Amino acid sequence: MTIEIIPVEGIPIVQPGDNISAFVAECLSVEDDDILCVASSVYSKSKGYLRLLEDIQPSERAGEIAEKCGEDPRFIQAVLDEADDIIIDYPFILCSLPHGHVGVRAGIDHSNVEDGRIILLPPNPMKAADEIRDEIKKITGKTVRVILTDTCGRSFRRGQTGVAIGWSGMSAIQDYRGDTDLFGHTLEITEEAVVDEIAGIVNFVMGESNRGVPAVICRNMPHWEGHDNLYFNAKEDITRTAMKNKY
Amino acid sequence: MTIEIIPVEGIPIVQPGDNISAFVAECLSVEDDDILCVASSVYSKSKGYLRLLEDIQPSERAGEIAEKCGEDPRFIQAVLDEADDIIIDYPFILCSLPHGHVGVRAGIDHSNVEDGRIILLPPNPMKAADEIRDEIKKITGKTVRVILTDTCGRSFRRGQTGVAIGWSGMSAIQDYRGDTDLFGHTLEITEEAVVDEIAGIVNFVMGESNRGVPAVICRNMPHWEGHDNLYFNAKEDITRTAMKNKY
Repeated sequence: MTIEIIPVEGIPIVQPGDNISAFVAECLSVEDDDILCVASSVYSKSKGYLRLLEDIQPSERAGEIAEKCGEDPRFIQAVLDEADDIIIDYPFILCSLPHGHVGVRAGIDHSNVEDGRIILLPPNPMKAADEIRDEIKKITGKTVRVILTDTCGRSFRRGQTGVAIGWSGMSAIQDYRGDTDLFGHTLEITEEAVVDEIAGIVNFVMGESNRGVPAVICRNMPHWEGHDNLYFNAKEDITRTAMKNKY
Repeated sequence: MTIEIIPVEGIPIVQPGDNISAFVAECLSVEDDDILCVASSVYSKSKGYLRLLEDIQPSERAGEIAEKCGEDPRFIQAVLDEADDIIIDYPFILCSLPHGHVGVRAGIDHSNVEDGRIILLPPNPMKAADEIRDEIKKITGKTVRVILTDTCGRSFRRGQTGVAIGWSGMSAIQDYRGDTDLFGHTLEITEEAVVDEIAGIVNFVMGESNRGVPAVICRNMPHWEGHDNLYFNAKEDITRTAMKNKY
């Protein structure tokens, strides 16, 4: 079946207090089983997960890191406030967050927000995805699935791609364990991070720039079986161990 | 505009000597500007980029690595033969290939092939993508864009996702440099790896398992401006440097 990737056009610039789910429902007729993908930065803005740089007092440590990275010390302080572990602090600051995501600058965004304000990631992206799902149900009567997306770099390859930081109504990972290939061999590759694969194409449609499409529908996506164990913990992650020991 | 992700259904099990482009053209009516995505393993099989394990004499080094990783020494020898650099050899073997891609086991596949044979990545994936594009033009008269996909793990996050290892008729990366956001700030995130974002959703549609859909069309994808510098070189890649120093 053909999968459709549909931009939700016409959403106004979101302000604190706005209801994104209501905006989506006004702009497009959602259907049962749609996967509604929402940019985490826009969700955060609607919820007021913002800080004013001028309100932040940087610590000594923030000042040291900021000097190394060429960043504003107040911005680095905000990163330290969000992170539960600093993996490297040079040549850029890479952190893990309490919800498991690992991102440069703790995923804090200072594009697409008015001057002097920065946008934090939602503190509980899973709950955020559940909430959007419930809101859509309340407004439209439709049962959708939801992914909250962010944009992130990767190892070995240049350029950012979309990733999922929260999801609701689906498993993060499709688990093929015990499945066989076309010739009956048991598969070695057993886990596919479907939420991230969806977040990728959706990120392209949202655009990083001034196109301003904060929500995208993915329609006719089949269901899959799996689990939600998307993040490595610090010990099992080889990259993280290597980076912590090196820098 | 709605983007369509269309599985090319009905392609038979590909054998060495088969023409994948002809199979695609028989199964589906391609249109100008379609992005035709082909699984690299199936392309390799059609071109005979296969080895028989029983033909491989493992070196002493292959034997040592195989023991550490719990792999067949002949398989590890094949990996060493493909790789231009071994980044780590424990707990799994991670290599870079001459064309730039970094993958576990040099991307060699031993699922979906008859017993005792392994499938190598195409030695020149960019040329392979060009060739498929030319073939489709010859057979159908249509000018498509082409991505050759592989499946790959990542840092920090569990599960594999699709990635692009070859492309034709497009840039790998959309480059936003100099662009501004909705509020007129110059963007900090300037490079988006669109070919990988497409390869992700396409990988889901292909399936890892016994669904056997080796080709997928991505229709109505807008064009983007950018460059093809998808791979970090060894020196600029922080993960690679950390891993090489640690293990």
